[in-house]
Amino acid sequence: MRINEFKSILGKKRVDFAIFYNLDSSRYNANMLYFSGYKGVGALVVPESKPAFLIAPDMEIERARKSMVKKAYSMEKKKFFESIDKIVKKNKLKTRDIAIDKNNFTLNSYEHFKKQFKRAKTKDISLDCMRLREIKTEKETHFLKKSCAYADKILQKAIKNFKSFKTESEAAAFLEYEAKKNGLEISFNPIVASGSNGSMPHHEPSNTKIKRGFCVIDFGVEYMGYCSDITRTIFIGKISKKEKEIYNMLLSIQQNTINQIKNDKKCSELYNYTNKSLGKYKKNFTHGLGHGVGVEIHELPNLTLNSKDKIRNNMVFTIEPGIYFPGKFGIRIEDTLLFKNRITTLTKTSKDLLTIG
Amino acid sequence: MRINEFKSILGKKRVDFAIFYNLDSSRYNANMLYFSGYKGVGALVVPESKPAFLIAPDMEIERARKSMVKKAYSMEKKKFFESIDKIVKKNKLKTRDIAIDKNNFTLNSYEHFKKQFKRAKTKDISLDCMRLREIKTEKETHFLKKSCAYADKILQKAIKNFKSFKTESEAAAFLEYEAKKNGLEISFNPIVASGSNGSMPHHEPSNTKIKRGFCVIDFGVEYMGYCSDITRTIFIGKISKKEKEIYNMLLSIQQNTINQIKNDKKCSELYNYTNKSLGKYKKNFTHGLGHGVGVEIHELPNLTLNSKDKIRNNMVFTIEPGIYFPGKFGIRIEDTLLFKNRITTLTKTSKDLLTIG
Repeated sequence: MRINEFKSILGKKRVDFAIFYNLDSSRYNANMLYFSGYKGVGALVVPESKPAFLIAPDMEIERARKSMVKKAYSMEKKKFFESIDKIVKKNKLKTRDIAIDKNNFTLNSYEHFKKQFKRAKTKDISLDCMRLREIKTEKETHFLKKSCAYADKILQKAIKNFKSFKTESEAAAFLEYEAKKNGLEISFNPIVASGSNGSMPHHEPSNTKIKRGFCVIDFGVEYMGYCSDITRTIFIGKISKKEKEIYNMLLSIQQNTINQIKNDKKCSELYNYTNKSLGKYKKNFTHGLGHGVGVEIHELPNLTLNSKDKIRNNMVFTIEPGIYFPGKFGIRIEDTLLFKNRITTLTKTSKDLLTIG
Repeated sequence: MRINEFKSILGKKRVDFAIFYNLDSSRYNANMLYFSGYKGVGALVVPESKPAFLIAPDMEIERARKSMVKKAYSMEKKKFFESIDKIVKKNKLKTRDIAIDKNNFTLNSYEHFKKQFKRAKTKDISLDCMRLREIKTEKETHFLKKSCAYADKILQKAIKNFKSFKTESEAAAFLEYEAKKNGLEISFNPIVASGSNGSMPHHEPSNTKIKRGFCVIDFGVEYMGYCSDITRTIFIGKISKKEKEIYNMLLSIQQNTINQIKNDKKCSELYNYTNKSLGKYKKNFTHGLGHGVGVEIHELPNLTLNSKDKIRNNMVFTIEPGIYFPGKFGIRIEDTLLFKNRITTLTKTSKDLLTIG
């Protein structure tokens, strides 16, 4: 996506090419995925004025050639940067100025890189990539909408079946199963946090019985590489008036915050709006208000206290206020939204408080 | 695990403390997990002569305090290394010599780190950690055995149900569901690669119909943080004599390779043994013979052509020869094994060729 804009950045920075790499088959490099669609081990080289190409170990070469970047060369993984150097030279690229992503370049890899590309000057391209990825193309917006629609559908099915789940793990397993059997990845491990577990925003579902009280369900899928992110909090058992009030307070704050969103709005102002609205509960709001969503689940913009980001056209991001009472309970309500002249909520599952059992 | 051995390494290296960090909530730092059991965002500080402690953002602090390292301080994620510096000083640690894991330290983080710890000399601890983790304790061996037993049980259930899966995605979803509903994580995204997809060792299950021919199923779970890894190749449809022969050839090579394993055996020799045994098919064997397994799915030892590693007591690793014919099919047979005076195969699912339908 947006590889031409990226090449013009490379031109302005006067670099010969940019290089992204991934050494770990159980992870992927998000920028490599963004520019090439390839998620495996290897390297992506983007020259300023020639087509991009991949370099991958033999075992991955077939997969690499099926990516958006059709051109892929074979490498020896043991001689990673040595192989890259050879192929770069074969492609008659200069190696004087090389753009690298310092957010995804380890110290050890850099030592190996420098041994091979001795005279190269490196320029950090990490922020440029993040800023490029922050503004979505029409195609990306389409994928993100579909991703959110799938997340909605699966979440609603899980909520409908919720009574049949004995443990948090079972509920989380159901969410994943529904995603996977449709050929979708999940965008992160689903969170199902009942009772006092709900006070840990990143609780890992456990194999114990679902407890009475609020139950936070945080879920998203990956469609064509693009993530969705939605949280709903339901209630298990008989709810008290006070519990109902606190849920509805958070819900109206979430909705009012969404209503504040307009072009050029400072993200820190949105955070402050939520924080202020929470009144005495603001100390229980222990995380950011939201984050951009794309090929990674956490992208720009940052909707936090110290953020310098502003809302602009074609951004896709979450609004997710939450309140947490350690050892007691937690509530979070989260949507993924698109700003394009006006705000559109892409995740559409009802936020009316649902009580079960 | 083995934190005392680690501290004695710190002593020998004359460093004041070691630091591990993780900035991305969708990933985890394997060394942090190994020493503390904590998988979230934050940092782990291991002083040479005092108890280790965690530093985590507010939203993760409750989770951090439930880890093996009970002591956890709150940090501002925006001021990551600044917060760490403060807490390190509060704990009266010297900051002259600091051990870092250069395999998991990015260039950008290092710049931030150096701004804060201006006078610190850093020493790379990455290989020491990998070498520590390579030799398993009794407790780890116990977790790994359990992990393999779960993988076996779930894989066998999937194979039994295989006729009911229409697509690779459905089969992969089933494997994950069975893991998750039991409160287990998966150690990597399951691979189900039928027909010509089987020639890509890291094929991602697709939403298309399972094809006739060999079907590679590569799967593992995570029990108490410890991974298992097993691959079986089954056959869908009526198998020819030649197909049967090639499967049985690979199977006997896998078994014979396992029989070669003894104390002090060079891993490269094991690789060469397999490679030589494959005869004319050795060009179709495009990856390593195996890898260590622990809190990460890929650890030391490396069982590859250029490996310098040797088999030693209390190592847990895979033996996984495979042959791949691009555009046609692939076969891989993999077990996770423990070496402790003698070799024990921890994954016990039958390797007799199974044909379905």
